[in-house]
Amino acid sequence: VRTSPLGAREVAGAPYTLRVLQEGYCSPQPNGTFRADGSVTLVWGGPVTALVDTGGPWDRQRLVNLLAEQGLSPNDVTHVVCTHGHSDHVGNINLFPTATLLVGLDLSRGDGCYLPHDLAKGCPYVLHPGLLEVMATPGHTINHVSVVVRDTSLGTVVVAGDLFEREEDEEEWRALSEDPVKQEQSRRRVMAMADVIVPGHGPPFRVFREWGVGKVPWEEDDEGNATTGDGPKGH
Amino acid sequence: VRTSPLGAREVAGAPYTLRVLQEGYCSPQPNGTFRADGSVTLVWGGPVTALVDTGGPWDRQRLVNLLAEQGLSPNDVTHVVCTHGHSDHVGNINLFPTATLLVGLDLSRGDGCYLPHDLAKGCPYVLHPGLLEVMATPGHTINHVSVVVRDTSLGTVVVAGDLFEREEDEEEWRALSEDPVKQEQSRRRVMAMADVIVPGHGPPFRVFREWGVGKVPWEEDDEGNATTGDGPKGH
Repeated sequence: VRTSPLGAREVAGAPYTLRVLQEGYCSPQPNGTFRADGSVTLVWGGPVTALVDTGGPWDRQRLVNLLAEQGLSPNDVTHVVCTHGHSDHVGNINLFPTATLLVGLDLSRGDGCYLPHDLAKGCPYVLHPGLLEVMATPGHTINHVSVVVRDTSLGTVVVAGDLFEREEDEEEWRALSEDPVKQEQSRRRVMAMADVIVPGHGPPFRVFREWGVGKVPWEEDDEGNATTGDGPKGH
Repeated sequence: VRTSPLGAREVAGAPYTLRVLQEGYCSPQPNGTFRADGSVTLVWGGPVTALVDTGGPWDRQRLVNLLAEQGLSPNDVTHVVCTHGHSDHVGNINLFPTATLLVGLDLSRGDGCYLPHDLAKGCPYVLHPGLLEVMATPGHTINHVSVVVRDTSLGTVVVAGDLFEREEDEEEWRALSEDPVKQEQSRRRVMAMADVIVPGHGPPFRVFREWGVGKVPWEEDDEGNATTGDGPKGH
């Protein structure tokens, strides 16, 4: 499997287009602190208007402005999915009191009504059949989820929260993981299905697979994979 | 160890007084859903004004009103501690952009600056030396924390988030736990130090211990413990 930067913040599709409203980052500072915020992604174009992650709590007005640039008010968002309960991802969930809200595995609607679902059993939570769904991707946190957008102009996009820190994060993700073994499984599963991945703290990147007969490409070594696309890098 | 309802929402102290602004609840509905919200607790009276948990995201204005009833605006809150990252506890963190914010083990201040700490190594995060601190209490979630208030009129109060669902929760807490073994350890540790516990989804309750020589009272069976206080119940 090879990856390369997407080089854009938007992936068009019919009906669903996806746009990274805020590109996440994480910068260690000389004094031992980190400056960080999570990616915030909008998926819209059909009956569902979904926001994936809401950024840190210091940026309430910024998020309202980013939505307004897309011609949307918070009330236009029908579904908010927070990939997990860390503060740089759940900071602004109270902007969306009318939306269906999934925070990790907490699914709620309206005034404190929590709904059952089967995400923990491996069943996706479907927002739009065949096009838009949430899947459990445990590891970074036990209850971590990712959003899958199908049939875009680039294929399947997975908005993966902190399942991936950034495109080339092999040195980093394990140290941030609640369960590295499960996270490795989740990462492989997503790498096997995604054409584009939106990570939690970096720009979106493309995934290129070379499918051979009877081979599971992400278990081959690097030499066994041909590359596709423009300037992909080893992952 | 015996417990009994506190029968009040406030515990006075010098300097720190504690008040449960919102009593958490969790009510299964006939249709399989749950109506739930988390406890919200204010600790004030010294240089620190701390809010423990922020309730669900549908109640932003209610939380502002509850603070106003105590004569406070959100900007008066110096520290917000969310015991863990579930949606009924982190719903309104963006009301407090000027506070130091601890969400589970995410410690941040200002505009997205994340700070190191040693909570995961077992060292408390001290808000006011000797009086007010945060301790790691893993189990319900891996990163769960609790707030300890010392030297109140009733002794030590622990605002314990969902480490305890409610006073008599033996039938329930394990099903909601990410790590029941760790949670059991955390529960015993808190039961051994707390005179009052504020649980995540029920009213505050008192804890009565009968200290015998060489005994660890919470490991005795029920018959081995004398009771103290007014109408305590077995736990």
